[in-house]
Amino acid sequence: MTELEKMGARARAVAKTLRTISADSKTTALEAVASAIIEHADTILSANAEDLTDAKANGMSESMQDRLLLTKERIGDMSAGVMAVSKWPDPVGKVLEEYDRPNGLHIKKVSVPLGVIGIIFESRPNVTSDCAALCIRAGNVVILRGGKEAYRSNLAITKVMRKALTGAGLPEDCVQLVTDTSRDSATEMMNLTGYLDVLIPRGGAGLIRSVVDNAKVPVIETGAGNCHIYVDKAADIDMAADIVFNAKTSRPSVCNAAEKLLVHRAIADKALPVIAAKLQSGNVELHGDPASKTIFSHMKAATDEDWGREYVDLIMGVKVVDSIDEAIDHIERYSTHHSDCIITEDQSAAEKFMAGVDSAAVYWNASTRFTDGGEMGLGAEIGISTQKLHARGPMGVNQLVTYKYEITGHGQTR
Amino acid sequence: MTELEKMGARARAVAKTLRTISADSKTTALEAVASAIIEHADTILSANAEDLTDAKANGMSESMQDRLLLTKERIGDMSAGVMAVSKWPDPVGKVLEEYDRPNGLHIKKVSVPLGVIGIIFESRPNVTSDCAALCIRAGNVVILRGGKEAYRSNLAITKVMRKALTGAGLPEDCVQLVTDTSRDSATEMMNLTGYLDVLIPRGGAGLIRSVVDNAKVPVIETGAGNCHIYVDKAADIDMAADIVFNAKTSRPSVCNAAEKLLVHRAIADKALPVIAAKLQSGNVELHGDPASKTIFSHMKAATDEDWGREYVDLIMGVKVVDSIDEAIDHIERYSTHHSDCIITEDQSAAEKFMAGVDSAAVYWNASTRFTDGGEMGLGAEIGISTQKLHARGPMGVNQLVTYKYEITGHGQTR
Repeated sequence: MTELEKMGARARAVAKTLRTISADSKTTALEAVASAIIEHADTILSANAEDLTDAKANGMSESMQDRLLLTKERIGDMSAGVMAVSKWPDPVGKVLEEYDRPNGLHIKKVSVPLGVIGIIFESRPNVTSDCAALCIRAGNVVILRGGKEAYRSNLAITKVMRKALTGAGLPEDCVQLVTDTSRDSATEMMNLTGYLDVLIPRGGAGLIRSVVDNAKVPVIETGAGNCHIYVDKAADIDMAADIVFNAKTSRPSVCNAAEKLLVHRAIADKALPVIAAKLQSGNVELHGDPASKTIFSHMKAATDEDWGREYVDLIMGVKVVDSIDEAIDHIERYSTHHSDCIITEDQSAAEKFMAGVDSAAVYWNASTRFTDGGEMGLGAEIGISTQKLHARGPMGVNQLVTYKYEITGHGQTR
Repeated sequence: MTELEKMGARARAVAKTLRTISADSKTTALEAVASAIIEHADTILSANAEDLTDAKANGMSESMQDRLLLTKERIGDMSAGVMAVSKWPDPVGKVLEEYDRPNGLHIKKVSVPLGVIGIIFESRPNVTSDCAALCIRAGNVVILRGGKEAYRSNLAITKVMRKALTGAGLPEDCVQLVTDTSRDSATEMMNLTGYLDVLIPRGGAGLIRSVVDNAKVPVIETGAGNCHIYVDKAADIDMAADIVFNAKTSRPSVCNAAEKLLVHRAIADKALPVIAAKLQSGNVELHGDPASKTIFSHMKAATDEDWGREYVDLIMGVKVVDSIDEAIDHIERYSTHHSDCIITEDQSAAEKFMAGVDSAAVYWNASTRFTDGGEMGLGAEIGISTQKLHARGPMGVNQLVTYKYEITGHGQTR
């Protein structure tokens, strides 16, 4: 058995316990974890300082260093995050359906934990406690495989959590951290059939693509967001400018940020200069198609590659369309089906757009930035699914369960 | 573009139409398909006769020939199957949740079709119409890739269906059959990212393993059933004998047939001879562990390989266990987590077993053979999922949808 198979076997053994544990036990354990993170902040911070020293020595970029950095305040946020998840209602043991068949069989469909969840993630160390809390709340065991550059931070956080879990009567192997941070361990995790019930990648497009392409275990694809805002001919132009500005600039590095602006030709002359000027006041670089450059010339020329790109930066592609149908077709072709929006005062156009666009979240007159577990009332999220199986959009605690059928008879045969 | 990519592109184009089509249109179209299958029975039968001639010439086994064979009666069953699916309530457009956020955003979570479903299946030609009907009822487009030996039958059925769909106003490309039946086309389908929303393999363990291991598109794993029946110390022995006999012998080739018998040591002396004799009266070959052979000697000796095997035949593995915990542990280790059963008069033992066994269906005092869409009231099924993502157990029309969030605002930004 390899190290990872041994971890998998320990996880499976513990999953059996966690499957039938009470809601209160999980709450108490998560409260203990939240307290322990604050209590042992210094240990975590000094491990993080070591990671940062190495990162600087290796020439890590400032923005990446910021992702890696922990502070007292960020540790406070991590603890608060775990505490919030501890208060979330238990999603396990809910009777989803219950009925009798004509032959007298009694069928109960009940929510149960997924079992063992694997997470492969990149530099942010707070993912360690966020994901562990979400998994445990839903009765799942988690195997975490973080990035090399955050290893000491992740290890320190994991140790604190495991000790707190044991103190609260839960098995420490509810949370395990993969110690090998080479590419090999990621590949092995993708093939850990029989141990992992699902693998969730959290990170950049390259990581996600690699997991989706190579995994033999079931995967939930997360994260890629080439999000569109379509300004319809019946749009309120000021509202359009506000929403586009917010969706593009409030946090350009995240997946629910808008990347593309489509403007109906009938309103483009009036709307485009207003929206474009506002975006440029926020230092957004615009890549326009020929028609939009005719109306607002201070743009770079967009190339065909622009339409499929997720910039994850202060850049926005701009295109004039002849109709709502052209907008829907463009989105169908290029969107990652994460979040797409129409700005219009015309209800029938909005309904057409929302029915016709095949994305996890479709918006009418609101910023795409709301596709988020917290903002949508789903609680903290483990990721945003861009696939259609199991869960779509933000995945909170309630999306980390499956169901089973409990069937009771009195000797029925077929 | 390859042939399959072209099919994928046509499917995507049509998926847009099918996504927003009315329930009545789909009903009418399926009724037309059901009638057309009867009307063109002779065309289908003569194509099937050609397939059978080749199959005989190639030395196909009698049982495989029987799977391939179509008769007037079987065509009647195919048509009736489509008609039954046409009457199933439309699962699309259901408001699953609807609520307002404190900032005034109105959020509606609505069921929508999955989109484009790929199915790879083996010899039975009736799968063609069964799967197409289920997919269309739920607003999905389907790309079917059947086995080489049934190609002419599948093509004839597909042609009849496509013509009937067009006649009823639906695009013919709702249903497409892959014309290349070589291994290459199966491999290419597994990698048809961007065109297929999900791929479902239907067939033997080898096919399913290959798809699960190699697919880059999302897959639903179906079918493998190493199902257990545990006879508890508090079992009613006659009921146990009836249920085990039914679960093993009523249709040994299907995935919900029982493969293993576990008997509590405290009742084994009495129960095992009764159950074993009954099984042998049905020509079941028994493979027993040493303890069970001591009690009932007319068995082959089981080897370690027996416990993980799905015999799909009139063979059953038999083992004496010391406790319900040993039974649960054995099942945790060897079950494919399809359907497992306890026979007992002791409610607390039953509850322990049903909570502790991590399978799609857990039974108390009933045959595992009931894990079936029709028997469980889910309607016809496209397969039985043995994974935990999306759907677990029988997948009927209601399991062939996903959901989207429709979010309405009045200019909200974040």
